[in-house]
Amino acid sequence: MSRVTIVPEEDRLTAQIAFAVEIDKLKRVIRRNHLMDGSRRENDAEHSWYVGMLAMVLGEHAPPGTDIQRVVAMLLVHDLVEIDAGDTFIYDAAAVAVQADAERAAADRIFALLPGEQGVRMRELWDEFEARETREAKFARALDRFAPILANHHTEGGTWGLFKVTATQVKEKVRLIEDGSPSLGAYALELVELSVARGHLSE
Amino acid sequence: MSRVTIVPEEDRLTAQIAFAVEIDKLKRVIRRNHLMDGSRRENDAEHSWYVGMLAMVLGEHAPPGTDIQRVVAMLLVHDLVEIDAGDTFIYDAAAVAVQADAERAAADRIFALLPGEQGVRMRELWDEFEARETREAKFARALDRFAPILANHHTEGGTWGLFKVTATQVKEKVRLIEDGSPSLGAYALELVELSVARGHLSE
Repeated sequence: MSRVTIVPEEDRLTAQIAFAVEIDKLKRVIRRNHLMDGSRRENDAEHSWYVGMLAMVLGEHAPPGTDIQRVVAMLLVHDLVEIDAGDTFIYDAAAVAVQADAERAAADRIFALLPGEQGVRMRELWDEFEARETREAKFARALDRFAPILANHHTEGGTWGLFKVTATQVKEKVRLIEDGSPSLGAYALELVELSVARGHLSE
Repeated sequence: MSRVTIVPEEDRLTAQIAFAVEIDKLKRVIRRNHLMDGSRRENDAEHSWYVGMLAMVLGEHAPPGTDIQRVVAMLLVHDLVEIDAGDTFIYDAAAVAVQADAERAAADRIFALLPGEQGVRMRELWDEFEARETREAKFARALDRFAPILANHHTEGGTWGLFKVTATQVKEKVRLIEDGSPSLGAYALELVELSVARGHLSE
């Protein structure tokens, strides 16, 4: 008589748990943005949750055929590299330039903690997000950029005022939102104009 | 000549954005648990991200056929009701009892911010999580319970020591992990025993 037994592969689980312990650190990577009540700066882990939720809520604004569940997965992992590389403010062009190498090195280290093929698959999600070529990546990147605009709009300008960012600079960033979702791009532009009209963002 | 134009439904987007602004508050709901470095208590938003990641990483330990993407979605929304109802410490039996009504009322309010059928679908995810009848809900609940055990194990007992929780109590909670995933249940039990052996958890 043969019997099928499910044997948990001890080594795989050990590697997965090491990865799980490692990524807890994302809760300590602090972004420039503030929570919508302005009480404190946001960390990468809660930001990742937030944009994952945005994907679920705003999925219908992606181009038809976009795999929203892949977008969610991409957004959950998109900032893991910042455990090593730290957060970069997108309006700091010099920092953005040197950041790419640091993030690739971080991806090499962090995803390799997982069992072979699982690490590869998760790394692919991050590579896809970075390359911004697929519909899924474009929509994910759009949401990642949409979130701080929404937050700044709700905190009387938030980081825009703090770091003297102008409406012209923000509008340049909005292009990437339009690229992932025309309707969200248009909405983001409205928020920018409204923030200017209210005096929370300079021209 | 006919032309298909995609018209964004202004009202739907307005409702979705109102929901998006509302759920930012989850970042301010504080749990008992600490981060794995012990530096501070965890909030619900970063916890929700973390268990969503656990689902992606530990999905193979769910029963065959479990829809992991649904588990991820469920875990991202599972704590939204705590925006109104607050976090309850699972070892505080009296608080857990009165919590159910408060959470249902919160679900009624928060999911109704979304456009009709979208709110219904998201509410169904939460109801399914609470009912703990499907494979997906059982696995999601298992991960929600697994995370604090992992964190306590890595913070020399963490909340167990702080709130005088015993190994017997923790083992009772581990049953729900076993129910969602036998291999993770067995692993959690090992962590409990190890914590006892190290003197970080009393018998």
